[in-house]
Amino acid sequence: MAELKALFLNCTLKYSPEVSNTEALIGKVIEWFDRLDVESEVVRVVDYHVRFGVTSDEGEGDEWPIILDKVKAADILVIGTPIWFGVRGSVAQLVIERLDGTYNERNEVGQYPLYNKVGGVVVTGNEDGAHAAAETTLFNLSHLGCTIPPNADTYWVGEAGPGPSYIEAGGEDHPYTKRTTRWMAHNLVHLARMLKANPIPAEGNTFDEEDEHAPHVG
Amino acid sequence: MAELKALFLNCTLKYSPEVSNTEALIGKVIEWFDRLDVESEVVRVVDYHVRFGVTSDEGEGDEWPIILDKVKAADILVIGTPIWFGVRGSVAQLVIERLDGTYNERNEVGQYPLYNKVGGVVVTGNEDGAHAAAETTLFNLSHLGCTIPPNADTYWVGEAGPGPSYIEAGGEDHPYTKRTTRWMAHNLVHLARMLKANPIPAEGNTFDEEDEHAPHVG
Amino acid sequence: MAELKALFLNCTLKYSPEVSNTEALIGKVIEWFDRLDVESEVVRVVDYHVRFGVTSDEGEGDEWPIILDKVKAADILVIGTPIWFGVRGSVAQLVIERLDGTYNERNEVGQYPLYNKVGGVVVTGNEDGAHAAAETTLFNLSHLGCTIPPNADTYWVGEAGPGPSYIEAGGEDHPYTKRTTRWMAHNLVHLARMLKANPIPAEGNTFDEEDEHAPHVG
Amino acid sequence: MAELKALFLNCTLKYSPEVSNTEALIGKVIEWFDRLDVESEVVRVVDYHVRFGVTSDEGEGDEWPIILDKVKAADILVIGTPIWFGVRGSVAQLVIERLDGTYNERNEVGQYPLYNKVGGVVVTGNEDGAHAAAETTLFNLSHLGCTIPPNADTYWVGEAGPGPSYIEAGGEDHPYTKRTTRWMAHNLVHLARMLKANPIPAEGNTFDEEDEHAPHVG
Repeated sequence: MAELKALFLNCTLKYSPEVSNTEALIGKVIEWFDRLDVESEVVRVVDYHVRFGVTSDEGEGDEWPIILDKVKAADILVIGTPIWFGVRGSVAQLVIERLDGTYNERNEVGQYPLYNKVGGVVVTGNEDGAHAAAETTLFNLSHLGCTIPPNADTYWVGEAGPGPSYIEAGGEDHPYTKRTTRWMAHNLVHLARMLKANPIPAEGNTFDEEDEHAPHVG
Repeated sequence: MAELKALFLNCTLKYSPEVSNTEALIGKVIEWFDRLDVESEVVRVVDYHVRFGVTSDEGEGDEWPIILDKVKAADILVIGTPIWFGVRGSVAQLVIERLDGTYNERNEVGQYPLYNKVGGVVVTGNEDGAHAAAETTLFNLSHLGCTIPPNADTYWVGEAGPGPSYIEAGGEDHPYTKRTTRWMAHNLVHLARMLKANPIPAEGNTFDEEDEHAPHVG
Repeated sequence: MAELKALFLNCTLKYSPEVSNTEALIGKVIEWFDRLDVESEVVRVVDYHVRFGVTSDEGEGDEWPIILDKVKAADILVIGTPIWFGVRGSVAQLVIERLDGTYNERNEVGQYPLYNKVGGVVVTGNEDGAHAAAETTLFNLSHLGCTIPPNADTYWVGEAGPGPSYIEAGGEDHPYTKRTTRWMAHNLVHLARMLKANPIPAEGNTFDEEDEHAPHVG
Repeated sequence: MAELKALFLNCTLKYSPEVSNTEALIGKVIEWFDRLDVESEVVRVVDYHVRFGVTSDEGEGDEWPIILDKVKAADILVIGTPIWFGVRGSVAQLVIERLDGTYNERNEVGQYPLYNKVGGVVVTGNEDGAHAAAETTLFNLSHLGCTIPPNADTYWVGEAGPGPSYIEAGGEDHPYTKRTTRWMAHNLVHLARMLKANPIPAEGNTFDEEDEHAPHVG
């Protein structure tokens, strides 16, 4: 049994079996995870019937609960997203909106359920927007409870304007993207191991303590 | 001697001795740090002669090197910034630009010098823009090598449009801001302790390994 | 017959008949439009079956073509969106992605089909993120061909953190939001009238001219 | 005498006489303006002593008032900025902050003083961030009173990660950047001519009308 579990939510706009560039770059992270004793699963979100909303179950055949169970079972959570119009795609936004539902839950020590997971992001686009997509996504994950290791993102984008995407452009040989993929994969694992061995104490970061722990402001 | 050192870079646009709202909220984080055996120092960046640029010493009387030494000596690095026009202020942007110079340095094991530090952000504005200011800043810090704990930000903003700022509006009693200040302070300390006890291994996250460690892509 | 037509795409995440705060603020813009001889139509996007994608017809029962026809018939196009996690909601992102398909079409003089329309944005959220939602959306609309008048946005957000939304909080009486609603409505009409009387000439802004008009760069 | 005046605020971080990539791309816009009877002036902001602040004169030898006079005399205002860490540079942010002071002034009909000017943006970076830099800047200009024509931005960025900048990379021959430069230049002129011939009426967009024009909300 692998030491750690990683879940990749591929937020491509393309329904299976169309080829996803984001999934191709996700595959590079998984190559590293395979060598680091991490079990990886990729979920292509658009293939599920996920309703718009901000709760954990929107009814009407909503399949988000299936994905949410996988999120909760993972030690490492990676959002993979394409760039559209300079920002992350609509499916990535939808996923984050659905994770809003976890704010209403607590883990066994009273923290948000995504505490002690580490978060990362994989971004591809034919051009510009990777910083915007990554920064919004990692920040949202940190709000939800994830720890963000150094260099927790990898991306590939081409020059200004329309052009070929990651696969067609041979992005897999792009030195910067290769290096950041390696760094990201390792740092996600380093931090996930640390948090598995020493979870973040439930001191100062739960709702229960609200009253008794407030400093005397005067 | 305190267990940990925290450096707050207050990126207000106001020169001393003008009152800074951002510094007031920084003070709330420090109240927690005082109780958690963390030594805090606040630098109001605008009071130093910091030149525009992206190296660690821009000459001509540049005082950034003084600040950079403090950054390197800290375990916890917090950027405090006001919001202007929906994003972080120019001084915060200037600080991040100057930190670009650290990309050319390595720590003793070959990582960026900000590895094993934890990063946080304090944002105040009379209105809207805290997410933008926080997400850009935390992402930049993570790129520079910092680890970002869960809930590593605290902010106060008022309703849409012009209005009173943090101090005048009595933001110190705002329940959400009080809670996020507490969570942020504790999580910065929890992660800083972890990283002090167990630094991130220099495996997979340095330049030296570039060649020998690449996976065989076939 | 009204002088001008306005289309509001309400990108709430809530399916009808749930009450939409964004629609309430849209209603305030429409009150002005009623007085300015503008015919208004509101489309709640989530009530249509709009598939993810970046073409003008994604097949499989895709209802985007119905909405796109309305977009093309409008003089004024307003995107209404809630804020989620500090940015515009997933449905607004989806709408923009689908408008990508118009890049492949031309109007009768060779420009993008959204040329000579004016664009605006209405944003509501219980807190922070209005600038981010508005700036991304207006910029995207300008790329697609819309002209953006001064003060082309109106928004309401509450203080930092969770809290009541526009309707419950009595946002309709918020002076800043009322004023920006008035300014936005009038400026959209002022510019729409100008562009109707004097469309943007097809000089320097079409693909056809690519070769003959390039300056001689030496 | 030229028909229109354009002011370019080059917000490079580099002090003269260092070569500025942003200025090189600005030069391409000016080539078009030369052919369109527009008089162009470029101000390299960092060569002036501009203090941090949000008023129109911060004292202490502040040279912003010199630049602000040029802004007011222009029909077309273009912000040129490099990208640093995925967003616009600190000098561009500083410029926008200083323009905050104009919110306290009115033109002869009671509107903000930047009404009836058109705004554009020129962005260069060795990589990713052009959308973020452009969208924030154009939105800020629209808030200040500028009208934003379709395709009011031009940018050049290279592939993911560090690399050569606009000049060294031969960006002047990049087809997308060439086209968007042409479109931007022409559309800025088209709209500036329209607004010069028919200024935006002072109806619904001033503070004076606050009371008598509000719709009866019931």
